[in-house]
Amino acid sequence: MDTVKQIREGHVRPASRLIRDIEDKIPSAKSEIKSLFPYTGKSFIIGITGAPGAGKSTLTDAIVTNLRGRKKTIGVLAVDPSSPFSGGAILGDRIRMQRHVQDPDVFIRSLATRGALGGLSHAVGKAIHVIEAMRKDIILVETVGIGQQELDIINHAHSVVVVLVPGMGDEIQVMKAGIMEIADVFVINKADRDGAKQLHKELISMLNAAPLGPKDWRPPVVMVGSLFKPKPFAENIEELVLKLEEHYLYLRSSGKMIERINRKITVEILDALKANILEPIVQKLDESGDLLDLVKKVKSRKVDPYSAAEEIAHRFLKSEDK
Amino acid sequence: MDTVKQIREGHVRPASRLIRDIEDKIPSAKSEIKSLFPYTGKSFIIGITGAPGAGKSTLTDAIVTNLRGRKKTIGVLAVDPSSPFSGGAILGDRIRMQRHVQDPDVFIRSLATRGALGGLSHAVGKAIHVIEAMRKDIILVETVGIGQQELDIINHAHSVVVVLVPGMGDEIQVMKAGIMEIADVFVINKADRDGAKQLHKELISMLNAAPLGPKDWRPPVVMVGSLFKPKPFAENIEELVLKLEEHYLYLRSSGKMIERINRKITVEILDALKANILEPIVQKLDESGDLLDLVKKVKSRKVDPYSAAEEIAHRFLKSEDK
Repeated sequence: MDTVKQIREGHVRPASRLIRDIEDKIPSAKSEIKSLFPYTGKSFIIGITGAPGAGKSTLTDAIVTNLRGRKKTIGVLAVDPSSPFSGGAILGDRIRMQRHVQDPDVFIRSLATRGALGGLSHAVGKAIHVIEAMRKDIILVETVGIGQQELDIINHAHSVVVVLVPGMGDEIQVMKAGIMEIADVFVINKADRDGAKQLHKELISMLNAAPLGPKDWRPPVVMVGSLFKPKPFAENIEELVLKLEEHYLYLRSSGKMIERINRKITVEILDALKANILEPIVQKLDESGDLLDLVKKVKSRKVDPYSAAEEIAHRFLKSEDK
Repeated sequence: MDTVKQIREGHVRPASRLIRDIEDKIPSAKSEIKSLFPYTGKSFIIGITGAPGAGKSTLTDAIVTNLRGRKKTIGVLAVDPSSPFSGGAILGDRIRMQRHVQDPDVFIRSLATRGALGGLSHAVGKAIHVIEAMRKDIILVETVGIGQQELDIINHAHSVVVVLVPGMGDEIQVMKAGIMEIADVFVINKADRDGAKQLHKELISMLNAAPLGPKDWRPPVVMVGSLFKPKPFAENIEELVLKLEEHYLYLRSSGKMIERINRKITVEILDALKANILEPIVQKLDESGDLLDLVKKVKSRKVDPYSAAEEIAHRFLKSEDK
């Protein structure tokens, strides 16, 4: 297929078009992504996550600059409606990103949260595959949030950077809520701000308290900030990139990489099962008016949603497999 | 059924036990929730959401105190691993909540995020039904997060309070990410802090810019804080509760209540379909070892996950309904 060939040669236009078609659930995208699939899985995927306002985009931009200095080819996927990559940006941010847009070895795309209440998981995994097929060495996936969506990045990335900033509420409590478990590298961004040293101290003491085996990875904490002394900004970023490289080598040598790859694939299969089993049934119920009837019956308490779902399962599933 | 009768009479122990069983997916919980269902749907559900550290629990506590003064019976469901209700609390918070624990007309339960990476949606809806069956007039559902989980509250509540605090990053950007659409009432908490007036001003100007019809609800902004002048704390809370009452009356008179109830029920049906259709298939694939085989094949790029999912759909779904 021509599109596949073009994407494999790194052409931006067909890759961008396919990612958009994936997001919009255009039917032809399905066969294209299937054709691409054999050429995927070779990139190293780094997730960069943290609360809005944590400076993830500026950090991502600086990592790209550093990695380009190492001659790595890069993909950036921003899954963040407030990211400058997504266009929800103040002008200065957008202009800053332009220099990478001009670089043929950097591919930048964003996924909007179309209909903010729907999950993005299906599009994220597939968009990553498109960039993998473009043969980018490293793909940076920027995600926002503290809730479920932030934790979901672990299902898409090999390595996860959690970005914290001083003074954004009770950071340590945030971390208890699942963040501690997904972080491979911590960044304290805007480290020139008040409270950075305190946050660093608390984070280190929590990390030291974690029960780790001798072969387990202990997430490092990197202080970053354009005004942060004593080292210049670029050196902070250099340290961060070295930690990411170290983590990559750890994943390879410890066998953890295989675990993470298996988890990524399992999540992709489960997403595909949802798209092929649950979604068509819901669509059928919706189009036939059965869903609307059912809502009315549940509202008047003539039926409960759980018994109704059992009946629908009986109607659609083969009995020998039930 | 005895449990149902006891819960309807407001007994705490069987209600707590059933909510725990729902969370733990104990099979008997399913028939119990079905038996309870006819007695549900009479409470007014208020969602209270915001970033960690926004002071949601203190606010919830104060709202409970105010509503008890109005002789309302109350349920509190905390879906927040960092909430004092969930036990992830500093001691002072937990002691403060104790006074309501002693009040027979206040029922407080928390849902932990068991296995942080799983969704909580199924348990939230059912736990609300248990509290509804206890005949509580008003149920406050406290949720955390800025990502997907925070937005999900709109599927469970009739009225949504979004709690902001000054100085927690770029609040306005956060709001663009879907929060603006779900908020019925804004609270600027810790309004004594620097930046509260600025946040208030920005928020009001965004709200004024929203294109609203003459009959649309314009979310009010309430300033709250224990040190916030000129009014004492209790008066700020009184204002908030009056705004919530006003919104309730608006929902009833505008017909919007029916829309929200229909949406709540639709989400419940979709959750139940997932539990009865998708989850048993995944469990079967897992137990038979088929899932593991498939992961290996996808890893070696012998098959893509999308074609594999189509094949599985064909295997489990009745062909006439495909």
